[in-house]
Amino acid sequence: MGENPVPQPGAGMAADIAEQPAGYARLLEPAHADPIAEVAAAVAARRPRHVVFTARGTSDHAALYAAYLTEIRLGLPAGLASPSAITVFGARPDLSDALVVGVSQSGGSPDLTEVLRVARASGALTLAVTNNPSSPLAETAELAVDVAAGHERAVAATKTYTAELFALLMLVEGIRAGDGVLPADERAALAGLPDLAARLLDDPTARGLAPRYRFAARMVTTGRGYAYPTAREAALKLMETSYLPALAFSGADLLHGPLAMTDPDVPVLAVVGAGPGGESMREVLAKLGERRADVVAVGPADVAGTASRIAVPPVDEKYAPLLDILPVQQLALALALARGEDPDAPRGLKKVTSTL
Amino acid sequence: MGENPVPQPGAGMAADIAEQPAGYARLLEPAHADPIAEVAAAVAARRPRHVVFTARGTSDHAALYAAYLTEIRLGLPAGLASPSAITVFGARPDLSDALVVGVSQSGGSPDLTEVLRVARASGALTLAVTNNPSSPLAETAELAVDVAAGHERAVAATKTYTAELFALLMLVEGIRAGDGVLPADERAALAGLPDLAARLLDDPTARGLAPRYRFAARMVTTGRGYAYPTAREAALKLMETSYLPALAFSGADLLHGPLAMTDPDVPVLAVVGAGPGGESMREVLAKLGERRADVVAVGPADVAGTASRIAVPPVDEKYAPLLDILPVQQLALALALARGEDPDAPRGLKKVTSTL
Repeated sequence: MGENPVPQPGAGMAADIAEQPAGYARLLEPAHADPIAEVAAAVAARRPRHVVFTARGTSDHAALYAAYLTEIRLGLPAGLASPSAITVFGARPDLSDALVVGVSQSGGSPDLTEVLRVARASGALTLAVTNNPSSPLAETAELAVDVAAGHERAVAATKTYTAELFALLMLVEGIRAGDGVLPADERAALAGLPDLAARLLDDPTARGLAPRYRFAARMVTTGRGYAYPTAREAALKLMETSYLPALAFSGADLLHGPLAMTDPDVPVLAVVGAGPGGESMREVLAKLGERRADVVAVGPADVAGTASRIAVPPVDEKYAPLLDILPVQQLALALALARGEDPDAPRGLKKVTSTL
Repeated sequence: MGENPVPQPGAGMAADIAEQPAGYARLLEPAHADPIAEVAAAVAARRPRHVVFTARGTSDHAALYAAYLTEIRLGLPAGLASPSAITVFGARPDLSDALVVGVSQSGGSPDLTEVLRVARASGALTLAVTNNPSSPLAETAELAVDVAAGHERAVAATKTYTAELFALLMLVEGIRAGDGVLPADERAALAGLPDLAARLLDDPTARGLAPRYRFAARMVTTGRGYAYPTAREAALKLMETSYLPALAFSGADLLHGPLAMTDPDVPVLAVVGAGPGGESMREVLAKLGERRADVVAVGPADVAGTASRIAVPPVDEKYAPLLDILPVQQLALALALARGEDPDAPRGLKKVTSTL
């Protein structure tokens, strides 16, 4: 054995994926949970009137999840802002009523940092959610949350994504509580997630689907509400690792127009939760069935007419994004390997965006 | 000739496309401009602190354009809200500081109507921008703008999209003026657009590109800032009419990850304006060139290394979305016909979404 053994293709991504249950447990330890509670209390005390998220790529999907949480759990309007209005076109929106949250694994994207700098100068409460507490983004923001996922080996983000989701959920529930401290039932639900995640990762179903999609020319992903960020992240992960063109649609938008593009040759990955979001997907699934689409459902319940299913534990849809994406990451990894790609070093993918 | 001659495939979409210059001119007539100015003055008087747009499909792209305008021209934070947080998950965000704008050709989507109803009940100023002033959406909102595009023949939206863009631009500039009345220079710039649009539609370049993409398996579209809604709408139009899977990325996001998916087999449609947005696309175009991507640039300037170009008049990037999409609509129509599809009656496409 040499000193620098050639790594197995995908070994880095596999290790990152496997660490996610431990990442959830870590965020619940006082060393990480206490600072998040302090940030949540500070936000609650400032009573922002609305929340603006800014992010790119995978972190944009974590921000989208947080926007749903903000509207549903906090009753605050939330939106995702495009950095270019500020960084390219010189917009100087009055953000003095807003909490502006930058979400970024590296915390190194200059455009997000510039958005937070401008927001802070306009009187906004600013918050950075990153995996690097000494990053420019974290140093520019008034408040910072460390998602504490550790070094990510693969270029395609997995454990930093779910750590962002988990930290953002803790943050929102802490703001809802007012003093940042999670209520006992909320804490208990979160404390159950590491085990559920670990057991889900032991299930070989998702990996076993890779040969089925080996020759797929493209894929459609769909979900509604809390499940829509998972559909978006699933599409990005498939594109980044397997170069499989994957189009993500909210269930409602899919019904509106792009349904015309689905046919038996285009596999559809549908995220169908055990709640109102999943319920609202039934019409979409029925229409996909009429078109004889090849559907793989990610969810806790058997859905009639689907070609295959990736079973996930039946949790409140609010928590489902912490679980549903895990087998999809495994599928993306297995599919990349089946297609002869190395997902640890995909062509053309950079860890830090440097666009201004 | 019978009483019901079989229509030529695409004749409806072609007629809709051709009517767009007249649609712009119509909105500048007092019968339409005056009510829009009144709505703008009413909004300005209420001084909303931020703006929330809600829309689906093509209208979502018009809303995205309006969100850029709101941030850049009005200095107000703007975001796009997902209806499902409210309609499926029961979110009741406090929108009392907000202007909430529903954008919909038909005004008949029950989910958008429900969002405006909830927003109005929470104290928001509500506005419907539709092509049907007696629609449920228009009747639910406190204020309404009629985009006055007339009956759209084809299912795929063209003239209603650009009428929405034009009306939203008039509205934002009217709000900026305070009294709703457009300043002389703004009015002059808008008054020049019908002629520019008509001359652009006479140019056969875009239609001539259809044979080139006849056998493309997929397409990537990209743009930044004001041009990003055009890239998104271009992708949707290609999908709706030709079933050509088209992935839209902001230039910054394309650099981050999905660039890996571009190769010489995947044509890229890049919207490159004559301003800071276009300037910020140079790095993206250089990277695409390194990957030997087949790029068609939509824009006023010659861009080095692109395979072909659709020339549009050099206007301020704020106005470019009113022009850039026109040849892209022509390309989508010609490509659909080249592929043997009837864009007037695409499979699986409905004019009104009825999802709640």
